[in-house]
Amino acid sequence: MIREHRFTFGKFVSQVHLRKELPQMDGIFPDEPGSPVFRSILICDTHTEAIALSIKQNHDIPLCVLSGGEAAKGWPAVERILAAAKKGGLGRDGLFIAVGGGVVSDLSAFGASVFMRGCKLCIVSTTLLGMVDAALGGKTGFDLFGIKNLAGTFYPARHIYLPLDTLTTLPREEWKSGMAELIKTALLGGGEMEKALRVLGAAFSRGDLLPEHEELLFELVSASVKIKGRIVEADPQETGTERALLNWGHTFAHALESSAGLGNISHGEAVAWGLVRSCELGHHIGITPKERALEITDLVRSFGYEITTPHPKMGDKKNFIKALWGDKKQKAGKLRFVIPAVQGVQIIQDDLIEDRFLQSLINGEYAL
Amino acid sequence: MIREHRFTFGKFVSQVHLRKELPQMDGIFPDEPGSPVFRSILICDTHTEAIALSIKQNHDIPLCVLSGGEAAKGWPAVERILAAAKKGGLGRDGLFIAVGGGVVSDLSAFGASVFMRGCKLCIVSTTLLGMVDAALGGKTGFDLFGIKNLAGTFYPARHIYLPLDTLTTLPREEWKSGMAELIKTALLGGGEMEKALRVLGAAFSRGDLLPEHEELLFELVSASVKIKGRIVEADPQETGTERALLNWGHTFAHALESSAGLGNISHGEAVAWGLVRSCELGHHIGITPKERALEITDLVRSFGYEITTPHPKMGDKKNFIKALWGDKKQKAGKLRFVIPAVQGVQIIQDDLIEDRFLQSLINGEYAL
Repeated sequence: MIREHRFTFGKFVSQVHLRKELPQMDGIFPDEPGSPVFRSILICDTHTEAIALSIKQNHDIPLCVLSGGEAAKGWPAVERILAAAKKGGLGRDGLFIAVGGGVVSDLSAFGASVFMRGCKLCIVSTTLLGMVDAALGGKTGFDLFGIKNLAGTFYPARHIYLPLDTLTTLPREEWKSGMAELIKTALLGGGEMEKALRVLGAAFSRGDLLPEHEELLFELVSASVKIKGRIVEADPQETGTERALLNWGHTFAHALESSAGLGNISHGEAVAWGLVRSCELGHHIGITPKERALEITDLVRSFGYEITTPHPKMGDKKNFIKALWGDKKQKAGKLRFVIPAVQGVQIIQDDLIEDRFLQSLINGEYAL
Repeated sequence: MIREHRFTFGKFVSQVHLRKELPQMDGIFPDEPGSPVFRSILICDTHTEAIALSIKQNHDIPLCVLSGGEAAKGWPAVERILAAAKKGGLGRDGLFIAVGGGVVSDLSAFGASVFMRGCKLCIVSTTLLGMVDAALGGKTGFDLFGIKNLAGTFYPARHIYLPLDTLTTLPREEWKSGMAELIKTALLGGGEMEKALRVLGAAFSRGDLLPEHEELLFELVSASVKIKGRIVEADPQETGTERALLNWGHTFAHALESSAGLGNISHGEAVAWGLVRSCELGHHIGITPKERALEITDLVRSFGYEITTPHPKMGDKKNFIKALWGDKKQKAGKLRFVIPAVQGVQIIQDDLIEDRFLQSLINGEYAL
């Protein structure tokens, strides 16, 4: 099973290599004549160190091991990466190779984008969330002053490896963290993809996901990469509205993550919960038919997500509302919601929504 | 006296407004309907705080005052800028207004390039070095691990104001810091520009620079902006060789700055010294005619620069050589020198130069 995708994001080209196996150091950056090993660093976290070592083999490449987890996604981690690159004698033609999930790839990609004003970047994504979301599309960043990705750049990786084998040892929590983005993208894709996802969801709720469904997962990840890639190609830097589609469920999710406290809830859990809220909101304003809202809610539930509201991890509801409007302030007074429609989705602005309704929705007083 | 220049650097457009007076807050970002004051921050240092306040007038805009000087050009200053932007409630459509010389504009521009993955940027340049070099061309950055601009981005400002009035109170050291870049650009421009520079140099060595020569300076800054802008347009991200022309004198200068210790010698002093070394090197390898080498050396000297070698601030000569080859290592084994030729300049690679000659040149054993 090998699938290759190629995308153009503005002046950048990203090549995605989806396969079972890990890439090896020789040939990890095929554009270049000769081996890149003498001017590369490998960046991983404590969870992916073994994987990074297996890619490195016996090459003499500096290895930068980060602590891992959202809590470690700050400037000190970026500084460690830059220090490793400096110590390794990398120049502007140096290659940063990130081995890990979204945190490692976001941090490494940010580091690569600013080291000597930009060097080469390759991402080996080892989590489902990384594969279907973080690794592709060029968003880099780190958390600052308690705000997720307050600092960041757009810097797509030249090569992105998605070695599905690394998922077999992923803890159930990590699966759930990534699956919500896969659900979101599959729903955007519709048709066959949504059908395949239902099969996977049924397997998931029975607890017999692997290895029978490996091929199904392979196809779903591939389709998801393609959908996300095409959307980002149309709007690489999120200046238009195309890329906003990828934020389906995220307006609610970001507020939930913020009120729960950074790191207390996985991004996937928050997105799954946000998808269900978007169905309720859509139904309330007459855009989402009841059957469609229930269909999506059932699909999300089949993957074992907590979908009730208020979410048990929400904390103070006032903080949630504050975070929701804080997001609004950051976006110059406009909150956008992606809402499922009869066909596909619609993007609506918050002037359609009364505060009172949002309040009742969060309190769980709205029933489909 | 008003002069406007407009440049396109890849996907960015920079507009340069050269005039006598400071800009005012209303209308500082003319692209936008209405006033930008409610989503802006002003960034300055202790030297330019009064200027920033005069731009701000009685608008309610957060002011972020940095310590100033190369020693303050690190991550903590960037973090202060980002904190001010966050506290000010700026979003992705927020505007960073830098008021100061190269350090303030490099730091602010870096901050603007990473805040929420990029917001708006305007630079009010208040030093000669800023006007003829740092403010234009999109290079942002800060020092890390003792390396100048080890971290940075390409992020051209949308609007760049060059209010010449701010130069009248500039200390002599600051003049010298900027004049070397102006000399370099005027020599690249040649012809009328070089002639005008000679007149200015003669005035400078007599110590009667202003106000008689204000108009001359205005024309020189304008021509310099135009030359730099055109060169950067041809090679915005320094991937080709065009932009390397702007590095005339800089290979030597960077090594001198490094061996002298960051902040112990101004960039201009180092560049002026480097220009003279490039003449000697060019003469040695038969590219620079003796008369041309002497002409340039005299011109540099007329502005009062220390041009003897070893430079009194050089420190240990071994460190200088190490820094020179360190630069080489960073650039994948190639050191480039810009060398004056019969007409214009040539770029040569280091394989033309014996180490032994470089050594004798640094020791002052080479006479034109």
